[in-house]
Amino acid sequence: MLRFIFFLMCLLQLRHTTLGVVGAVTPKPIIINGTYINPELGKYHARLRVLARSCRDIKEIHGASQDGMYILTTESGTYYQTFCDMTTAGGGWTLVASVHENNIKGKCSLGDRWSSQQGNDPDLPEGDGTWANTVTFGSAEASTSDDYKNPGYYDISAQDVSVWHVPNNEQLTSWTSSAVLRYHTDSQFLTEHGGNLYHLFKKYPVKFGAGQCKSDMGPSSPVVYDTGDKDSTANLYGPPVGKEFESGFITFRVFNADQAAMAMCSGVKPTECNPQHYCIGGGYFSGRQQCGDFTALEQASKNLTQSAVLLFYR
Amino acid sequence: MLRFIFFLMCLLQLRHTTLGVVGAVTPKPIIINGTYINPELGKYHARLRVLARSCRDIKEIHGASQDGMYILTTESGTYYQTFCDMTTAGGGWTLVASVHENNIKGKCSLGDRWSSQQGNDPDLPEGDGTWANTVTFGSAEASTSDDYKNPGYYDISAQDVSVWHVPNNEQLTSWTSSAVLRYHTDSQFLTEHGGNLYHLFKKYPVKFGAGQCKSDMGPSSPVVYDTGDKDSTANLYGPPVGKEFESGFITFRVFNADQAAMAMCSGVKPTECNPQHYCIGGGYFSGRQQCGDFTALEQASKNLTQSAVLLFYR
Amino acid sequence: MLRFIFFLMCLLQLRHTTLGVVGAVTPKPIIINGTYINPELGKYHARLRVLARSCRDIKEIHGASQDGMYILTTESGTYYQTFCDMTTAGGGWTLVASVHENNIKGKCSLGDRWSSQQGNDPDLPEGDGTWANTVTFGSAEASTSDDYKNPGYYDISAQDVSVWHVPNNEQLTSWTSSAVLRYHTDSQFLTEHGGNLYHLFKKYPVKFGAGQCKSDMGPSSPVVYDTGDKDSTANLYGPPVGKEFESGFITFRVFNADQAAMAMCSGVKPTECNPQHYCIGGGYFSGRQQCGDFTALEQASKNLTQSAVLLFYR
Repeated sequence: MLRFIFFLMCLLQLRHTTLGVVGAVTPKPIIINGTYINPELGKYHARLRVLARSCRDIKEIHGASQDGMYILTTESGTYYQTFCDMTTAGGGWTLVASVHENNIKGKCSLGDRWSSQQGNDPDLPEGDGTWANTVTFGSAEASTSDDYKNPGYYDISAQDVSVWHVPNNEQLTSWTSSAVLRYHTDSQFLTEHGGNLYHLFKKYPVKFGAGQCKSDMGPSSPVVYDTGDKDSTANLYGPPVGKEFESGFITFRVFNADQAAMAMCSGVKPTECNPQHYCIGGGYFSGRQQCGDFTALEQASKNLTQSAVLLFYR
Repeated sequence: MLRFIFFLMCLLQLRHTTLGVVGAVTPKPIIINGTYINPELGKYHARLRVLARSCRDIKEIHGASQDGMYILTTESGTYYQTFCDMTTAGGGWTLVASVHENNIKGKCSLGDRWSSQQGNDPDLPEGDGTWANTVTFGSAEASTSDDYKNPGYYDISAQDVSVWHVPNNEQLTSWTSSAVLRYHTDSQFLTEHGGNLYHLFKKYPVKFGAGQCKSDMGPSSPVVYDTGDKDSTANLYGPPVGKEFESGFITFRVFNADQAAMAMCSGVKPTECNPQHYCIGGGYFSGRQQCGDFTALEQASKNLTQSAVLLFYR
Repeated sequence: MLRFIFFLMCLLQLRHTTLGVVGAVTPKPIIINGTYINPELGKYHARLRVLARSCRDIKEIHGASQDGMYILTTESGTYYQTFCDMTTAGGGWTLVASVHENNIKGKCSLGDRWSSQQGNDPDLPEGDGTWANTVTFGSAEASTSDDYKNPGYYDISAQDVSVWHVPNNEQLTSWTSSAVLRYHTDSQFLTEHGGNLYHLFKKYPVKFGAGQCKSDMGPSSPVVYDTGDKDSTANLYGPPVGKEFESGFITFRVFNADQAAMAMCSGVKPTECNPQHYCIGGGYFSGRQQCGDFTALEQASKNLTQSAVLLFYR
């Protein structure tokens, strides 16, 4: 009985001293009988309770296992929201970026944030420098309709990447089912390159003239397919280029025969010197028609060129 | 007396276990004697307590009735801030977007997010596709100085729209008093078109060549005026075009004689085939001088062309 | 003993009624034994506890004294994050903006948000109008790689400014040590111009033709150096222009001989009529090659032109 009285009185206090308020300074109850009065606030607090540096931490340390939007923090205390894939190969994948081509004929024009939005300019050998800076843009929910990059891209300490090619304008709830290609690495290759792509590209600059085809190729890792396989990967890039790469890999920072740099070859490892037909991102190109987020991918299938490339870390 | 002791002790606990902290892990009190130590935190918690999917829910479910900035959430859990009009015609209106013309002579150039920022390009019949995608930009506080679109545009399930034409660069506190035109619908027309403009424009694409003038006009609803009337509406668009529309409506997705699509005719319903002189937004135009957020409105009054068009849902 | 029982029971209640939840509506404990279960949540709550309108308030009212990211609010209740310098000359400095030149040869092109991104256009005498509007962009963590402007720019009521010239792409933790020039005012000059630069530039428009060189110069204040001195300031701008200004000041809104307006002369006060060689920001220029965030600073040292200009208020 005494216990019950204590219970009631503490609860009473709580109802007048916890979180919510109507005016500026007088607290109001947010919980009655152990239940949130406002369920949306309950969901928000559930997200805050598992606040972490990465989706991996959210899953491994805090036990959250549902796909969806979560709140993350950088080391310095910048808070942001993104999508966590808690399902694929054990889950814990943080969406950190998407490369979206808004206009395949627009050559380093507006919207080409992963190459250059300032035209194909020899004075800008690294283009906009997006792969190796801390500039952020876009939103997770719009990452199939626009370029996206959040603070996790440079802040998270990761081992592997996961890549999804999702048709343009698909909504979040359909990403997995509609993806034309999905794979991840499990080689932990990021560990030896600084723990994320920001550091990897500091080491391997996406810069015109900084190296030669073949001899200066950056890191490449074999991949495990989650949607598609080696053959479907090759088909996406189209028959004309199928003999110029080996499927089943993801490769970073490659050069073509003209010393133009590209950032990422999704699903493949180049074996010849025309990566502009199947690799994406980049800086200055000696040939203007190659400049752009999706470089010179015009001969690839529309399934590929009309899909955004979503990048996850774990 | 016993009650008082309980009170003190519970409070004590609370002071050491609730919210705030100075270091990383030791909680510190945020409330003393039932009052927030930091009034700004009190205001923030007041906003969180009424967290909801729309300003309508904030008003109807949680009882908040003051105009101003609130925190909203999408279904998937993206948090954002925007302005709620809690006054007009019962209140509960969420600001979801603004169409701002930064340069009436700039034809589908930078800043024309509601048409095309990439020039007038026949390869982009829908322009940037903003009316029917989830891309977001701008901020509520700058919505009279820049284009604005928040997640509510595609997430909220609404029945009606409210539109304010507010002079460029006006600050939030002066929007209502300075507006040159304000009206809302009460026909609940959005209900049959998916509950918001995102879904409406999926159904009625703002796309060159997707239809004909008159025969393929999208939904139109009568409006109730909050500032201005039918005559002042016609005056804003200027005498030359006054016979080409009927005032007292809002109309979506119309075509001109050349099959160019426009997204919205604010305050009017076209009766002829030159809507480019009084409708806004759009995709590709066969005539370049018509392309732009404010299309070919050069002959409208400056009161109209130098005002941003703010869009609310309820 | 009784006290101990009370303690336990209150704690118990608390563990079932405070913040965190897993599902939507059932609260879960966030604190055990006076310690946050999730230290990142503890840090977040520590930031919220000192929520304020400016870094000055965070320091003076709430006693936080560590450099780093904090959460601020505007008067109308827009929440945002930025960097607080709690060290320099007593601390309490809020980072509100950075002027970053992404392409010194790009003349009022993309990325020139503090002049014009729409070319050098006589129809836009104020350019994009950024100095005197509420448009915001960028992020604190990327303010050495991109333009930055947060709501504090127009919301905070301040007395003085602090300016840091930090090499492009430097990360937050290295800003102080790598800066090529740092200084602040202590004249409280902002007080008589509305309390911030937004209001100052409403009073002194950065607008072509709005005044004459010398006679219409805006406010100028002597500065106190934190890194560098008068001589190093002059050296940064280069020998050719050293006789055209006096070092040891910060000056706002100046005109050149052609009536072109510039927004800010960092570290100097013009004595002649060619400020385009050492002042930044602006609107329309009669000579196109002068238009840009960094105007016509090509002859300045690379230490200067390849550094972002970070603006703080106190």
